[in-house]
Amino acid sequence: MLQKGIAAAPGIVIGRAVVQKEEMVRYERRILDQDEVAAELARFRESVRAADLELEQVKKKVRHEMGEEEARIFEAHQLFLQDPEFIGAIEEKLECERVNAEAALEEVRDSFVAIFESMDDEYMRERAADLRDVSQRLMKNLLGIHDQLQADFTEPVVLVVHDLTPSDTAQLDREKVKGFATNIGGRTSHSAIMARTMEIPAVVGMSDITEQLQTGDLVIVDGLEGEVHIRPDEAVVAAYEAKQQAYWKQKEDWARLVHEESVTADGHRVELAANIGNPRDAVQAVENGAEGIGLFRTEFLYMGREQFPTEEEQFAAYKAVAETMGKDRPVVIRTLDIGGDKELSYLDLPKELNPFLGYRAIRLCLDRVELFKTQLRALLRASIYGNIKIMYPMIATIAELRRANQILDEVRAELRNQSILFNDHLEVGIMIEVPAAAMIADQLAKEADFFSIGTNDLIQYVMAADRMNEQVAYLYDPYHPAILRLVNQVIKAAHQEGKWVGMCGEMAGEELAIPILLGLGLDEFSMSATSVLRARDLLRKLDYKSLQETAQHVLTLESGEEIRAFIKEEILNKL
Amino acid sequence: MLQKGIAAAPGIVIGRAVVQKEEMVRYERRILDQDEVAAELARFRESVRAADLELEQVKKKVRHEMGEEEARIFEAHQLFLQDPEFIGAIEEKLECERVNAEAALEEVRDSFVAIFESMDDEYMRERAADLRDVSQRLMKNLLGIHDQLQADFTEPVVLVVHDLTPSDTAQLDREKVKGFATNIGGRTSHSAIMARTMEIPAVVGMSDITEQLQTGDLVIVDGLEGEVHIRPDEAVVAAYEAKQQAYWKQKEDWARLVHEESVTADGHRVELAANIGNPRDAVQAVENGAEGIGLFRTEFLYMGREQFPTEEEQFAAYKAVAETMGKDRPVVIRTLDIGGDKELSYLDLPKELNPFLGYRAIRLCLDRVELFKTQLRALLRASIYGNIKIMYPMIATIAELRRANQILDEVRAELRNQSILFNDHLEVGIMIEVPAAAMIADQLAKEADFFSIGTNDLIQYVMAADRMNEQVAYLYDPYHPAILRLVNQVIKAAHQEGKWVGMCGEMAGEELAIPILLGLGLDEFSMSATSVLRARDLLRKLDYKSLQETAQHVLTLESGEEIRAFIKEEILNKL
Repeated sequence: MLQKGIAAAPGIVIGRAVVQKEEMVRYERRILDQDEVAAELARFRESVRAADLELEQVKKKVRHEMGEEEARIFEAHQLFLQDPEFIGAIEEKLECERVNAEAALEEVRDSFVAIFESMDDEYMRERAADLRDVSQRLMKNLLGIHDQLQADFTEPVVLVVHDLTPSDTAQLDREKVKGFATNIGGRTSHSAIMARTMEIPAVVGMSDITEQLQTGDLVIVDGLEGEVHIRPDEAVVAAYEAKQQAYWKQKEDWARLVHEESVTADGHRVELAANIGNPRDAVQAVENGAEGIGLFRTEFLYMGREQFPTEEEQFAAYKAVAETMGKDRPVVIRTLDIGGDKELSYLDLPKELNPFLGYRAIRLCLDRVELFKTQLRALLRASIYGNIKIMYPMIATIAELRRANQILDEVRAELRNQSILFNDHLEVGIMIEVPAAAMIADQLAKEADFFSIGTNDLIQYVMAADRMNEQVAYLYDPYHPAILRLVNQVIKAAHQEGKWVGMCGEMAGEELAIPILLGLGLDEFSMSATSVLRARDLLRKLDYKSLQETAQHVLTLESGEEIRAFIKEEILNKL
Repeated sequence: MLQKGIAAAPGIVIGRAVVQKEEMVRYERRILDQDEVAAELARFRESVRAADLELEQVKKKVRHEMGEEEARIFEAHQLFLQDPEFIGAIEEKLECERVNAEAALEEVRDSFVAIFESMDDEYMRERAADLRDVSQRLMKNLLGIHDQLQADFTEPVVLVVHDLTPSDTAQLDREKVKGFATNIGGRTSHSAIMARTMEIPAVVGMSDITEQLQTGDLVIVDGLEGEVHIRPDEAVVAAYEAKQQAYWKQKEDWARLVHEESVTADGHRVELAANIGNPRDAVQAVENGAEGIGLFRTEFLYMGREQFPTEEEQFAAYKAVAETMGKDRPVVIRTLDIGGDKELSYLDLPKELNPFLGYRAIRLCLDRVELFKTQLRALLRASIYGNIKIMYPMIATIAELRRANQILDEVRAELRNQSILFNDHLEVGIMIEVPAAAMIADQLAKEADFFSIGTNDLIQYVMAADRMNEQVAYLYDPYHPAILRLVNQVIKAAHQEGKWVGMCGEMAGEELAIPILLGLGLDEFSMSATSVLRARDLLRKLDYKSLQETAQHVLTLESGEEIRAFIKEEILNKL
């Protein structure tokens, strides 16, 4: 039997299932008598204290067995336990509505989770998973439940669970788990991200897969198509063994391209780079053949903590990436892109009706100059350890670019006064993600060293459609002629001034987009590290000369559907 | 002494002040004993009942003295008293937090008002004023206060008040009040709108003007500059009498232009039209010399009520406007632009993180086809009574335009089957307000009969800046070269296909914008009715031929400031 889900991590695994159903936490919602409130409050606080102690233990174990980064997840859980907004809301509900602690916890958790999950930010959505996880821990403490995910296996297994929390993941025997399937989650859920990091096939969002399978059942998880075969017969197993072989073969073929050039069949050279979110990702980028980092998001330094990162902390992170990539491979580091939907507890930002159209990124940095200067100092200092380039996000006017560069000059002067070394020839570019910037690209190109087109945001603004909003998600179309025409305009404007243009939105790694972008003259394609080799493989089969014409023809077509169909039929199917 | 405020309605008045300080409502926040709760709840409900009876009286009086439209304001107040969200929230606070009714009322009112006031919609912000007003009425009932605004005057006065609520306005002796100044409010506040309707000078947002003036003081309200002179000396009075004369003279000059053509000095003809929000506004539009309605917003039909308007109600409204304007003057009626920030209680819309990038306008209408069809039927039926044109808002793709036209064709077929008459040659156009539409204007121009550029939204999306968000309001700049270039592109694309282009954002009525838009070839300028004559006066002094060159030069400038300065110096100062 075949069941569809969401492809979360590529690959195929055929094996025996270990099914772990969701712990049913059962409790009755109860209205307390007035004189019970104090005791219930005390019981709740005791569960918080106990959870904190448990997390301290888990953290130590994880730090020892896996490392600092993984341990920090549990530090984040501990922070939730100290968060007056979260814990305070539960206590207030308990006292004001006089409900038992379990009900107060569940109701407050649900409202917080709903807020986090509605945000257009992988980081914040992961926080929803963290919050669920730590709430589950509190709930179990309240109910006196002590069993945990069975995590030690004697042989390789396919794990089938409701959801894979960070706590679960931390305890997994990574040697034995060869793939997994979960009831809930999407492509950016914690479990999906873990699967890709562990490089094991995974399918998520399967609804009731824990009901369909029993421990010991044969199962096939196809992380390429997002399918799970439940108790497949021999013929199906044979077919999938072949498919598995073919996938491994293709991976091998791609792997051979790690050190090859990113060059088209007719000799046109571009750069294939990776987008990364923290220094460790840079290692994976190199392993996957990335020729540079096209976007290093620096938000990780600012989030999940209680104060701004120091200059030293930032310097260390930027230096680490620069050194990992070496002198030849460029590292484009984007200055802080925070605000609105991505809140920092220690930065008091106003609530906004439309955070995507609000006070964020360079707007915030130009307003809070000290914050910006600290980052620029760290970036300049790190610039002597590799090929760092600075990139400003959300530029909409020339005045913003000039003001940012003026602040950068002030920082340069300070460093010179202090005799601190930095790279004098460091390139400074901008994201093209606000439609206004695309429309004045000719003017901006005179003063920026490079552009990187941020399609994720650009598309949202050009279509006036929040891609996280399901009711208008159909409008979020990278192939809409308006988007491609703007991209064309931006590339032309930059080339006119002899500047290079990259793209760091998800679009840059898409099989259908690459031939068009190549034809439009894009110089750098920055994508998730795991897409680089596939992109290189495709690129090496394409003909740049003829794609230039193809791309101009595409700009005359009337819709995304038409354009996708055209590229598929006329280019991809003919390779 | 001179004090600055916000110019709310033009003109100058010199007269004696009548100052009415804000009623100080004083109460103590008090935590109730558990056994007091029921009695307090009863007391609150009694105040609601009493307020409802008062409103019934006011409504009758107002209907009799002023008319149906004014009376409906108080119907809206009564609806608040029946609204379970509002009244329910107060009762819940009272019961759950055990606070007295005054505190519960004030706290709930403040949170509702904050929500309404944060919305980018004049209608919703007026609702905030209504909510304050009805809450004040409840509060006075709770506190046993019965005095009201002194509203009868024996001689002409300048009213100086904290704020002018709808209740106050309804009771004003309009013959005697010759101008006013208020402590609070902005250009779109209820009091400002009332002043413009009454055509009396007003300055709002004066902070403490009720403290600066005493009843009987001489005062000058300069609604042109947004200034109030407190106890001016003779020299100042003389200067302002001259200014007043000049203003009246200018108004007379403008008034002479009511029946003149909208034609430039070198004989280029355009259309000056008005934006209206309800049928009555059309009368004012004609009186102010508008040659058509460039935007009839139909939301008023849907708001402030408990169910969808019927086809008959809509038909009556559209017919009324068509008849007011007559066979020659076009009336562009925009189909429903609702959703996200403009909620309807009877239309269950999801809460959105970024409502401006959400499910609204044509997106909603194409999804709720029956709702859309009812409006289209009413529009088609009304089309035989004048020169109606239909306009779809928020079009972003050709598919949306085609789908909307397909539904319109279905409605046409239904009407034909029922032998109901409609205008077969009615023009159907689209708003250009989503950047994507501007980028594919050449394609859309083949299938739309006309364009109207909605700059209010277009600017927000192009700049990625919510204009209601003060921290990024500086980016909301109609003169940013990106906006002007898009406008240029849209006009060129339409003319290429022989279609006309209008503009119905606030920009179309601005003195600095008119020379540029004219030079770019804009065919129709739609603005608030009170701006039409001033625009015509300006237009008749301009030279179309030379402005074509000027406009193309403007497109090469680098910033809004530069462009505004250029137009001021090179065009306006030389007239």
